[in-house]
Amino acid sequence: MTTIKDSVHDYIELDPTAEALLDTPEMQRLRNVRQLSTVQLVYPSANHTRFEHSLGVYHLASRAVDRLEVDDALADRLRAAALVHDVGHGPFGHQTEAAIERHTDRHHDEIEWLLEDSDSDLGRVLTEQGLDPAAVAATVDGRGPLGELVSGSLDVDRMDYLVRDAHHTGVPYGTIDHARLLYALRRVDGELALEEGNVATAESALIARTLMNATVYRHHVSRIAGAMLDRASERLLADEVADPDRFARLTDAELLATFEDYQRTADTAARIRERNLYKRAVWVRRDAVPDRFVGLAYERTRRLEREIAEIAGVDPAAVIVDSPAEPSSPESRAKIVVDGELRRLEDRSALVAGLDACVREIWRLGVYAPPSALEAVREAATAVLDLGSVEGDVAP
Amino acid sequence: MTTIKDSVHDYIELDPTAEALLDTPEMQRLRNVRQLSTVQLVYPSANHTRFEHSLGVYHLASRAVDRLEVDDALADRLRAAALVHDVGHGPFGHQTEAAIERHTDRHHDEIEWLLEDSDSDLGRVLTEQGLDPAAVAATVDGRGPLGELVSGSLDVDRMDYLVRDAHHTGVPYGTIDHARLLYALRRVDGELALEEGNVATAESALIARTLMNATVYRHHVSRIAGAMLDRASERLLADEVADPDRFARLTDAELLATFEDYQRTADTAARIRERNLYKRAVWVRRDAVPDRFVGLAYERTRRLEREIAEIAGVDPAAVIVDSPAEPSSPESRAKIVVDGELRRLEDRSALVAGLDACVREIWRLGVYAPPSALEAVREAATAVLDLGSVEGDVAP
Amino acid sequence: MTTIKDSVHDYIELDPTAEALLDTPEMQRLRNVRQLSTVQLVYPSANHTRFEHSLGVYHLASRAVDRLEVDDALADRLRAAALVHDVGHGPFGHQTEAAIERHTDRHHDEIEWLLEDSDSDLGRVLTEQGLDPAAVAATVDGRGPLGELVSGSLDVDRMDYLVRDAHHTGVPYGTIDHARLLYALRRVDGELALEEGNVATAESALIARTLMNATVYRHHVSRIAGAMLDRASERLLADEVADPDRFARLTDAELLATFEDYQRTADTAARIRERNLYKRAVWVRRDAVPDRFVGLAYERTRRLEREIAEIAGVDPAAVIVDSPAEPSSPESRAKIVVDGELRRLEDRSALVAGLDACVREIWRLGVYAPPSALEAVREAATAVLDLGSVEGDVAP
Amino acid sequence: MTTIKDSVHDYIELDPTAEALLDTPEMQRLRNVRQLSTVQLVYPSANHTRFEHSLGVYHLASRAVDRLEVDDALADRLRAAALVHDVGHGPFGHQTEAAIERHTDRHHDEIEWLLEDSDSDLGRVLTEQGLDPAAVAATVDGRGPLGELVSGSLDVDRMDYLVRDAHHTGVPYGTIDHARLLYALRRVDGELALEEGNVATAESALIARTLMNATVYRHHVSRIAGAMLDRASERLLADEVADPDRFARLTDAELLATFEDYQRTADTAARIRERNLYKRAVWVRRDAVPDRFVGLAYERTRRLEREIAEIAGVDPAAVIVDSPAEPSSPESRAKIVVDGELRRLEDRSALVAGLDACVREIWRLGVYAPPSALEAVREAATAVLDLGSVEGDVAP
Repeated sequence: MTTIKDSVHDYIELDPTAEALLDTPEMQRLRNVRQLSTVQLVYPSANHTRFEHSLGVYHLASRAVDRLEVDDALADRLRAAALVHDVGHGPFGHQTEAAIERHTDRHHDEIEWLLEDSDSDLGRVLTEQGLDPAAVAATVDGRGPLGELVSGSLDVDRMDYLVRDAHHTGVPYGTIDHARLLYALRRVDGELALEEGNVATAESALIARTLMNATVYRHHVSRIAGAMLDRASERLLADEVADPDRFARLTDAELLATFEDYQRTADTAARIRERNLYKRAVWVRRDAVPDRFVGLAYERTRRLEREIAEIAGVDPAAVIVDSPAEPSSPESRAKIVVDGELRRLEDRSALVAGLDACVREIWRLGVYAPPSALEAVREAATAVLDLGSVEGDVAP
Repeated sequence: MTTIKDSVHDYIELDPTAEALLDTPEMQRLRNVRQLSTVQLVYPSANHTRFEHSLGVYHLASRAVDRLEVDDALADRLRAAALVHDVGHGPFGHQTEAAIERHTDRHHDEIEWLLEDSDSDLGRVLTEQGLDPAAVAATVDGRGPLGELVSGSLDVDRMDYLVRDAHHTGVPYGTIDHARLLYALRRVDGELALEEGNVATAESALIARTLMNATVYRHHVSRIAGAMLDRASERLLADEVADPDRFARLTDAELLATFEDYQRTADTAARIRERNLYKRAVWVRRDAVPDRFVGLAYERTRRLEREIAEIAGVDPAAVIVDSPAEPSSPESRAKIVVDGELRRLEDRSALVAGLDACVREIWRLGVYAPPSALEAVREAATAVLDLGSVEGDVAP
Repeated sequence: MTTIKDSVHDYIELDPTAEALLDTPEMQRLRNVRQLSTVQLVYPSANHTRFEHSLGVYHLASRAVDRLEVDDALADRLRAAALVHDVGHGPFGHQTEAAIERHTDRHHDEIEWLLEDSDSDLGRVLTEQGLDPAAVAATVDGRGPLGELVSGSLDVDRMDYLVRDAHHTGVPYGTIDHARLLYALRRVDGELALEEGNVATAESALIARTLMNATVYRHHVSRIAGAMLDRASERLLADEVADPDRFARLTDAELLATFEDYQRTADTAARIRERNLYKRAVWVRRDAVPDRFVGLAYERTRRLEREIAEIAGVDPAAVIVDSPAEPSSPESRAKIVVDGELRRLEDRSALVAGLDACVREIWRLGVYAPPSALEAVREAATAVLDLGSVEGDVAP
Repeated sequence: MTTIKDSVHDYIELDPTAEALLDTPEMQRLRNVRQLSTVQLVYPSANHTRFEHSLGVYHLASRAVDRLEVDDALADRLRAAALVHDVGHGPFGHQTEAAIERHTDRHHDEIEWLLEDSDSDLGRVLTEQGLDPAAVAATVDGRGPLGELVSGSLDVDRMDYLVRDAHHTGVPYGTIDHARLLYALRRVDGELALEEGNVATAESALIARTLMNATVYRHHVSRIAGAMLDRASERLLADEVADPDRFARLTDAELLATFEDYQRTADTAARIRERNLYKRAVWVRRDAVPDRFVGLAYERTRRLEREIAEIAGVDPAAVIVDSPAEPSSPESRAKIVVDGELRRLEDRSALVAGLDACVREIWRLGVYAPPSALEAVREAATAVLDLGSVEGDVAP
């Protein structure tokens, strides 16, 4: 059996299907898509890729199916789905997914199109290995038997990424006890749950993600870079410089090169490359933002940007409004056996409410602009977004 | 400069005072007092001692005083206090401290008596090194300038033990970012606080302790062993087999040997040695316990034990009632600068309330007995303690 | 299946035999025998015990038998032998083993006597679990089918202790790739060997032990403490203060307490406790020592000590001569498949000769004495041992 | 002071010069040059970059100059040189350096040209910060006062990369005790040396590199990919598709894109991207290679390739001969104080000879070809290179 050395899980043993899948261009491409996209602009060691993460998720899925004692055919499907679960990610992962969704109506977990694509080797290899591509695609999307193991509130995806992101950023908060989570997994009435006595185990995973959100995933520098990438991606796709399906299969570097080649996006490429990003003109807590400006739809966001730009007397491209939805915690819906009954974590854990408050606490509305336009944009945005008490720019 | 290799902080540099203090029998004794006393009965790797922990606390204090830029005399005092802060601990640390307090009216952080004791080298060495033993003792107790660095809500003691206990148990939850805590320390109006932007840093330490409590520090096996040690210690001291001050200076092994030599405590020694402990006859959540039986005073506990034993028809020594006070979280009172003002963490953090609920969630009243007496004791205890809905024994 | 959390291997799963064996007093005793005996006087974090190490060796043996696909009965035996392999160790492990051998003619790997002893639970538990105690004892001693897995040049004992000692001392040199060693194990013609392509893997284990020897295991402070323990043990046994079999079953702390209770050994107990050890009067490289004084037999050593003491005008107990045999490297005899044939590592590795030279390089003859007698003893020892060019005392 | 979180050294504090230098495009570019180039094709986690490595080297240099107590001006220069020491590396680092040297006559440690280049910000920033660019360039090249700290046999470069490469590959052999190396550094008669008692410390670094060479750096998959990159780079430069200076400033991804755009190198780009590499037609030990074919000059290598191709009847581009010089160990020339005198490690260490033999042991001559041409190329190469006893293909 072939083994691969991994910095997080040590040796990973590959089954023949995994070996064949790894050889496809779709999987090899993930070597050049960073797991944490622009987080490396803040945490310089965070250069790990979706390729090694995919191997880690595969490894944890293998261990889980061994413990859960599922039959061979399902085990094969679950392992394969775990391995390919990220092939649908575009360049810079989550940071271009909204743009891709707008132009393809497809979430990154929906990978049927790729499996059916005659240009892709993935579907063919799955079939050759005796697997049904459609069933694998469903599993990647969290559907079908034990699909929640790959995409759900207790999935092996997050068990891997929390630990891996901690290892590579150096931030210890993601260091969860994934072995204990795996040991505690049970199949109860067809659903995945943690066995009796594991409320604290489930809470710890939830805490880890909340702390990693605050410290790593939602760091303002990465949010700014992500917003810039989104706007440039939109430009590229709206101007039909790139075909959406081809766009979705670029690597990080190829996206920047594509930006560079097109006059209207070249500035973004240069700014990312030289870490010469927009800054925060506005950065306000949830309490200071009128409800109608929270979690804005895309079209509305762009209209507000144009409005702000006009008042500020700057180019519309010099204003980015970033008003995320209040984030949810999928982990809080994890199922857990308590006193013999299946419950949701949020119904049993006194911590979940605290963590929800914590999530609200770190929420920020941001308006970003080039350094030269900061003052003007801040003033205009304050008026347009009706911000009563705006905190000042906390430049990085 | 002498350096010592440590498994947690790598190299620790010793100043001359530290070198001299380490050579005293009082410090050398700590090599034979385990940091986590009977936790090793659950986590077999948890054999680290108060000696190495003391070195770690000294190391963190050194780094903190460098950053806080305190004057040399105070820095010397703080480092010395950090190094000796645990010399007042009796054998098995916290597990005999209540018995010692009952017979000496002294908390383990009060170490004046040891510094003044002509049998002890500590006071003499401190004086020789130009330090005032009384001032060092006050610092160990959290009093005087920056005493809270050694004993307070942001002290270097917990920064070390959380990480060290995680390293040695293998439980990752204690892995806090102690370097960031140190970087964030400021002296504001004479008080120790975390600078602006560190609510999450402070929360993470609070979370770490809550999770370590649930998983490690309050594990029922360790609580049972601790309660057994308390009862045997009380017997020894009440029967005047051991002098309280001499008792307080025994090592772990010496305490067990002392137990072994006295007929009324020999059984406890054998049971600890062979991990043949009492079991849980009763183990109930806070909600199921009438308020008047929560956080019982010692005398009352003993009366209840006798009452239960009588009803159950067993020897009074065969019943241990363990009803802890609802634990507080000193970390939640940590001070932190928010928007330029000094605040308590509990006033700023949405998480603190959730963690308090969590702490309440893991609280348990236990009644312990030898396996042969479990049934009888459970029934009697249920009646005496008026337990409406008692959960069954969840034997380890 | 019961699992135990370990700081090195994370979760260790116990089979029913292991669970039963762990409950015996013989195994529980190992909680109080430090793996590295007096090394903690140099590396204060090195307080791990033979108990946790035994669990680790059991874990690696479990993984090895899974990979080697041995039949169930043999697998059971190998796992049980791995778990109990250290029960024959006396207090302070290797530091009293010579004294025990002199008085029992028994090496610590010979544990038949313990299994047959009616006072011991071990033999009974093994039988109850369907195992033949004699076969287990043979395996512990490296005999019988795959006995070399437990005690041999590629045994799981050293795979565990190198990594564990590194984790607890903080010295990185022991961090071997034990997973790769396990993966590479094959059974070739009934012998244990590393499969093709693993010369470097085997070398790395050999290097790790050589570096750990130089840095940790042969540190002069630990050698001095060990020599002091040996002399005091001899005194106790020669004076029949302790029965050899009972002596062999003491814990570390019990040995010191026994020393303390006997007037002729009380000084050693106090010196170890307070880290107030003898110092090096003489510390010379191999080249400077006449061959006839290398690897001295015990009786001869004691005669030389008396001779030196007489000339120096000090008490014979104030002189300890420590002239070890030139250490061998069992790892260099590890078998390895090269070009399809079974070879010894030493015949294939260019490094082995270099490491042998290295081992010779760190060899030292030591003569130790209390600080007050250092000068006199150095002079006398130089004459008696005919040391042409003695280096001076390199006091710790 | 700004701090950056690093996965290896935790927090790194930046001085103002470092902050300014980090903002230059030259430093930012290193975010997109992998430290271990194509090693990630074997060890998928090895995606760390020369950017984070540069920060690590800067950090160790800072700590070293603090301990060595050099004056402020020199300290500034050493820190700056440590930070920029890798800006001269081309894409894929060492794997294109020979091609760059052939076309520029410049080694990657010679960075004057970059500092003088008006397109580069580096020279200007250094001058603004009060540093002499020429002196910094000399230091990077190991010249001038303490230049050997940045580039020499005991330099901070290797202290960082060994540990970092271990962290990211998961291979433990690089885990050296860099803190001890730093503690042991002394300036003796103007030369950098390890103080008395550190032969083993120096040996451990030498061992670490030897083991990492065998396991990681010289892995055949990476050697094959490197050889393919070299040939394609040569093609690009010889055909004047790219200007050598511009070539040297590409990132990894930009080089592959450049290859892709040129018909004669597009195949190499695709093969690297899809991990569809040439395989080993020949892979022979040093003993089996006639001396005249060891360490071949470039021109001669190409002639041999053409000769082999002709005999094999394949395209010349389908044959790559890779005959490295026998590698030297710069670490073996490290200076060390022994008995008060400055010595070279190789004169004092019995291990060095063993390691040299080991280095010879892992040496291999390789001839690589596409899978379809393997047989023909093997036969032709065996004849042309006069290989008496060629081992077979050990396909990965």
